[in-house]
Amino acid sequence: MDSINIAVLGAGTVGGGTIKLLNKQLSFFQKKLGLPLRLAYVAEKNTFALEEISLPADTTVVEDAEIALRAKDVHIVVELIGGTGIARELVRTALEEKKHVVTANKALIAHHGPELFSLAEKQGVSLYFEASVGGGMPTIKTIREALVGNEILSVTSIINGTCNYILSEMTEKGADFNNTLREAQRLGYAEADPTLDIEGGDTGHKNAIMASLLLGKYVSYDDMKIEGIKGLTAEDIAFAGRLGYVIKLVGIIKKRAGEKCIDARVHPVMLSNDHILANVSDVLNAVLFEGDAVGPVMVYGPGAGEMPTASAVVSDIVDVARNIMAQDEKRIPMGYYTEANKATITDDAEIESRYYLRFTVNNKPGVLGKIADTLATHGISIASVMQEENEVSIVSIVILTFTATEKNVKDALQEIEASEEVEAYTQLIRIED
Amino acid sequence: MDSINIAVLGAGTVGGGTIKLLNKQLSFFQKKLGLPLRLAYVAEKNTFALEEISLPADTTVVEDAEIALRAKDVHIVVELIGGTGIARELVRTALEEKKHVVTANKALIAHHGPELFSLAEKQGVSLYFEASVGGGMPTIKTIREALVGNEILSVTSIINGTCNYILSEMTEKGADFNNTLREAQRLGYAEADPTLDIEGGDTGHKNAIMASLLLGKYVSYDDMKIEGIKGLTAEDIAFAGRLGYVIKLVGIIKKRAGEKCIDARVHPVMLSNDHILANVSDVLNAVLFEGDAVGPVMVYGPGAGEMPTASAVVSDIVDVARNIMAQDEKRIPMGYYTEANKATITDDAEIESRYYLRFTVNNKPGVLGKIADTLATHGISIASVMQEENEVSIVSIVILTFTATEKNVKDALQEIEASEEVEAYTQLIRIED
Repeated sequence: MDSINIAVLGAGTVGGGTIKLLNKQLSFFQKKLGLPLRLAYVAEKNTFALEEISLPADTTVVEDAEIALRAKDVHIVVELIGGTGIARELVRTALEEKKHVVTANKALIAHHGPELFSLAEKQGVSLYFEASVGGGMPTIKTIREALVGNEILSVTSIINGTCNYILSEMTEKGADFNNTLREAQRLGYAEADPTLDIEGGDTGHKNAIMASLLLGKYVSYDDMKIEGIKGLTAEDIAFAGRLGYVIKLVGIIKKRAGEKCIDARVHPVMLSNDHILANVSDVLNAVLFEGDAVGPVMVYGPGAGEMPTASAVVSDIVDVARNIMAQDEKRIPMGYYTEANKATITDDAEIESRYYLRFTVNNKPGVLGKIADTLATHGISIASVMQEENEVSIVSIVILTFTATEKNVKDALQEIEASEEVEAYTQLIRIED
Repeated sequence: MDSINIAVLGAGTVGGGTIKLLNKQLSFFQKKLGLPLRLAYVAEKNTFALEEISLPADTTVVEDAEIALRAKDVHIVVELIGGTGIARELVRTALEEKKHVVTANKALIAHHGPELFSLAEKQGVSLYFEASVGGGMPTIKTIREALVGNEILSVTSIINGTCNYILSEMTEKGADFNNTLREAQRLGYAEADPTLDIEGGDTGHKNAIMASLLLGKYVSYDDMKIEGIKGLTAEDIAFAGRLGYVIKLVGIIKKRAGEKCIDARVHPVMLSNDHILANVSDVLNAVLFEGDAVGPVMVYGPGAGEMPTASAVVSDIVDVARNIMAQDEKRIPMGYYTEANKATITDDAEIESRYYLRFTVNNKPGVLGKIADTLATHGISIASVMQEENEVSIVSIVILTFTATEKNVKDALQEIEASEEVEAYTQLIRIED
């Protein structure tokens, strides 16, 4: 083969980083790895974006991505446009044209993976997506290759830098959510529209992708319970700190041997200060795998950003190029990732956890007793209670429970919240041990 | 291909784990990954070792490893005997017979890698060795695949569980080295002959292997500076703790852009308590990579043990099987790992570091001044000093320096130690920031 030709679609942040990294590494790939990679096309509507980026002399720049991905000599199409609109159409077309595809697009894989993997299998090409989860950290490769000898029993992950930054700042400075978000936006750690990050959607996309790989079935994002961090207050973070915990937004995946469904969800949790994930702060990410043979293995690093994400995209390009050299498009089968093979997610009600409950109540005699009684009638044991001496009329009572089912806890809360002494909804945070 | 036939040589701890894991996963590999793997042979002289392990019905047990590795239908030979004697002969023979080889043997790769990789290249087969560094954590795969788009600028690693356990215990309990070693031996965390672990050889083997992959040249174990942990005292660990540091045995690899040599060494270091590796305790391992694109990426997990190591061996077997299915024996070229392509290691004298120096001196006026003067004449600046009020005649003075070259520090120490007020050799520990 004379050369393996790459078309990069999109020269924004990640696209620009990928082009720079390819340009720098192409000669290493050729000379040391024997991979004759060539950046044949860059497709970008905003030609201004390309002014800062130097391109190899033999790279063609086009505004119309279709020209690049339909070009006869292109072997690998790298989709770095983002979103699920035009990106989905272009990836579909590329696969129909029998091009291998590399993408960093988590929303695309989480929402349209079944359609795209099916199409790739049918066309005999690969769709690689390492950069879609955890930026530069190897997560997809760890699940599909490094831990392939294991049944992976659980994954607990901090995979959204924006939320982790906000929660780290709130913890460190005792600041409230809204001010911290605004500061994060000012510093460029949060988008102008932060919805996808702070409401947990981005973590959800990544969690759904990893859960699918773990189970060997399609775990649908839409079926997964997702809670973001908007409801977390400085008060909760302070209480957690005094109890020896930090609050993190995590993706949780748990698989029980013999069970056909998978427990996959996204929500804030309290982690004990000595939990390995408790010290993962600021914009950094970490994914903790528990394999039945290997035990706990964690990868840690920058989960986003121009060059970290480009690093993962380029590692996929090299993997796909190695597959092309070997005519080995079936190296990592993805045929299970279909609508027809959709996984059942464990019902929320059946989740078992320890809980942090913060009740907002009238400062009257007997209120704590009533709450404790109601919890007891629902079979929920109390591990510890914190109520502070206070002159004000409305106070917080914090209760940590022993392990209980979510159903029992929700039932108890409904009963407690119906009482006239209770002034607001109860804050509920699950404790992950 | 009807089946890909595996011969496992050695059914000790890792061999036994590998056989168990293969036996459990073979049907998954066949059905889900399309890899028709079969455990064709197990070679083990001590038949007693096999009594506890259930084998597939079609596995042949032999006492003579040569029978297994010469068998016509065997494709992958898995060497889990250890050491560099018989294991080397068997791996050579297997490669000569054009069998792919998977090994967990770090000493073999570090000492005889050049001979074995050359032979493998010549014969058109692969030699895989993920389990040789970091047990179940993906380290080789991370360097060769996940970070292939990066120039990896440094690797700092805690990769010997025995040393990490001993140092963690000494730190936690204030205990001395010899008692802690004996306790570690009693608990099975240290061998009866602990030399290879505590003198840094095991860390050295792993560090030499990683350094070779980083540089794309053969970094010889024999050329590398290696210091173990025998000389560390409870006093040093206590001083470090009060200064906000922990002491760890690490492998260090640093590559400077444009330089032809590599800084590769093994010795104890002081790590600030907020260093990401400072909290890696007990028998756990971690490897921190710094890539020019990705930035810092760390993998963390169990670096040894039956099933974690088996997990890495099995991931290699799957990789090699995927290569065999694709007739892709050149997927990861190792042709650079030769004696002819041997790397130059940075001269010790040129190392730059901050230093912890503990002087043992007569408790007389003027001694500290003399030491400080001598350091100054060698261009070494003092960052902090700790000397405690004490009635005894011989005392410790601890000095932390700013960055200095090893040559200047060693010259200064030689001069200081020649003085009659100095009662013992100076303890020197490098500080890694």
